[in-house]
Amino acid sequence: MNEFDLIGRYFAPLAGPEGQGLLDDAAHFSPTPGFDLVLTKDSMVEGVHFPNGEYGAGVAERLLRVNLSDLAAKAASPRGYLLSLAWPKQIDVARMADFAAGLKSAGEQFGIKLWGGDTVSIDGPAVFSATLIGECPEGMAVKRRGAMPGHDIWLTGFLGKGYFGLRAITESKGNSDIFYKPPPRLEIKSILRTFASASVDISDGFASDLSHVLKASHVSASVDIDKLNFPDELTQWLQSHAGDIRTLLSHGDDYEVIFTAHSEHRAGIESAASSLPFDVTRVGSCKLGEGLNLLKDGQPFELRKTGFSHF
Amino acid sequence: MNEFDLIGRYFAPLAGPEGQGLLDDAAHFSPTPGFDLVLTKDSMVEGVHFPNGEYGAGVAERLLRVNLSDLAAKAASPRGYLLSLAWPKQIDVARMADFAAGLKSAGEQFGIKLWGGDTVSIDGPAVFSATLIGECPEGMAVKRRGAMPGHDIWLTGFLGKGYFGLRAITESKGNSDIFYKPPPRLEIKSILRTFASASVDISDGFASDLSHVLKASHVSASVDIDKLNFPDELTQWLQSHAGDIRTLLSHGDDYEVIFTAHSEHRAGIESAASSLPFDVTRVGSCKLGEGLNLLKDGQPFELRKTGFSHF
Repeated sequence: MNEFDLIGRYFAPLAGPEGQGLLDDAAHFSPTPGFDLVLTKDSMVEGVHFPNGEYGAGVAERLLRVNLSDLAAKAASPRGYLLSLAWPKQIDVARMADFAAGLKSAGEQFGIKLWGGDTVSIDGPAVFSATLIGECPEGMAVKRRGAMPGHDIWLTGFLGKGYFGLRAITESKGNSDIFYKPPPRLEIKSILRTFASASVDISDGFASDLSHVLKASHVSASVDIDKLNFPDELTQWLQSHAGDIRTLLSHGDDYEVIFTAHSEHRAGIESAASSLPFDVTRVGSCKLGEGLNLLKDGQPFELRKTGFSHF
Repeated sequence: MNEFDLIGRYFAPLAGPEGQGLLDDAAHFSPTPGFDLVLTKDSMVEGVHFPNGEYGAGVAERLLRVNLSDLAAKAASPRGYLLSLAWPKQIDVARMADFAAGLKSAGEQFGIKLWGGDTVSIDGPAVFSATLIGECPEGMAVKRRGAMPGHDIWLTGFLGKGYFGLRAITESKGNSDIFYKPPPRLEIKSILRTFASASVDISDGFASDLSHVLKASHVSASVDIDKLNFPDELTQWLQSHAGDIRTLLSHGDDYEVIFTAHSEHRAGIESAASSLPFDVTRVGSCKLGEGLNLLKDGQPFELRKTGFSHF
């Protein structure tokens, strides 16, 4: 099959009306009047972001979910996506079909369809890039800058998925869905739109991403790490590996949302959060100055490394 | 330097206000009221789309121009772009700086700024993907389907850039700008919006891309290849390599626009085209049925191969 046949067979069935059946040069989208667009683009490289040879449904799920997490952190509602897929030359058509099945599954779960993109060959590892397009009522998208001294710091869900997800796929310890299917916290959008002064999703690591907010907002923060949530099995694990909480705080890929809000909104946030399928926990507060101060049992707690860098 | 330093040094200066200084999770864009969005995404792989090791300013220029050509064919005005850049692990920072210079140059020429994206490492060839966002007045973006029997077929500029551009860089014959700086025909947009029934840009090859329009529109076409324009040096070359016109008709990467229009618009198109910096030539017409019939001196002319496929 040539690339047109492959696109027609595996990807055209995933296309929304904006994608013109993947038979046009570009996608066409009529924005909702009164809404702003929120756009994000992230890529995954075989051997860097997922194990060699594993480019099936799981990677497709993860590719969309990771980008959806960016939209979630910006309080946007996802609308659609474009893909650039570079497949190793000796293409395994069954893998491509499996990848398409992962797109279909995630697309249906999160209500997004394929709008376009391209499919090319590479003499090397697979590289998949997705552009996600979302919308947010005009002026309501939440940015990284905007936190003020005195604002509370909140965290969705729990930490540890990134670290334990990686162990699940590299050491076959635990369920690989922890890695391949991180849940984007899209349900946080109404709280963000109503209450948040700044927000970010955790892709580089809790400490690193929170530091991005602090830097952009010109504030410092104090975070009580005893308040951070970990799932039950991690809590047990931490009790026997106490030092490794540093690993969890600096490991990337947790895909939770950190946001800040004025302290007068505490009750409003707690009330709105009570109906969500995940916890929303107040973990610290912003202060004058710069830098992130972690506290454990009221004492300063130092990290050696704050996050992941490619270079 | 880590990736944040590299992004800050080379790419943040290219960011528009939509890109939030490349310090946020996503880009924010307020669409122009009454306009539709047109989105395209194309990628380039080292060793497939450009020669090994040549990932500098030229490739950046070409990456944007090739995507701009898609917007041109859809009658859209470019607004901005996102990038996913996968750089070989042993990164050459001077090359990255040169790549950024190419983005700057093309961005300034075509009035677009960087909105976001990501930068990752790869143990393999460089892979660059761009998403371009354009706008077109509501309902006026031109699609591949829409050509009707009797409609004229028009072509911008001239053919041969793709083939001769590739020779320029693989055999050092001629100016490499033919390859790296194909001019996107953005000036065609007012003619397309006013007169066109269907359009496509030539990325896979004249014959292949025109066939896409015919198939989407459920029409056939007859094209007089004696009417196709080639630059003077190619016309001379063709006189001594007559058979190779097949190569030029089936070679990709010409980045001209093919469009169709009702025959009542001939005078209007010719008048509007007279002020453009390139020719707009009527090369054939659509008919009932299916398939592309090429004629030379009034006789059928067969191609062996219609375009490029990756697989």
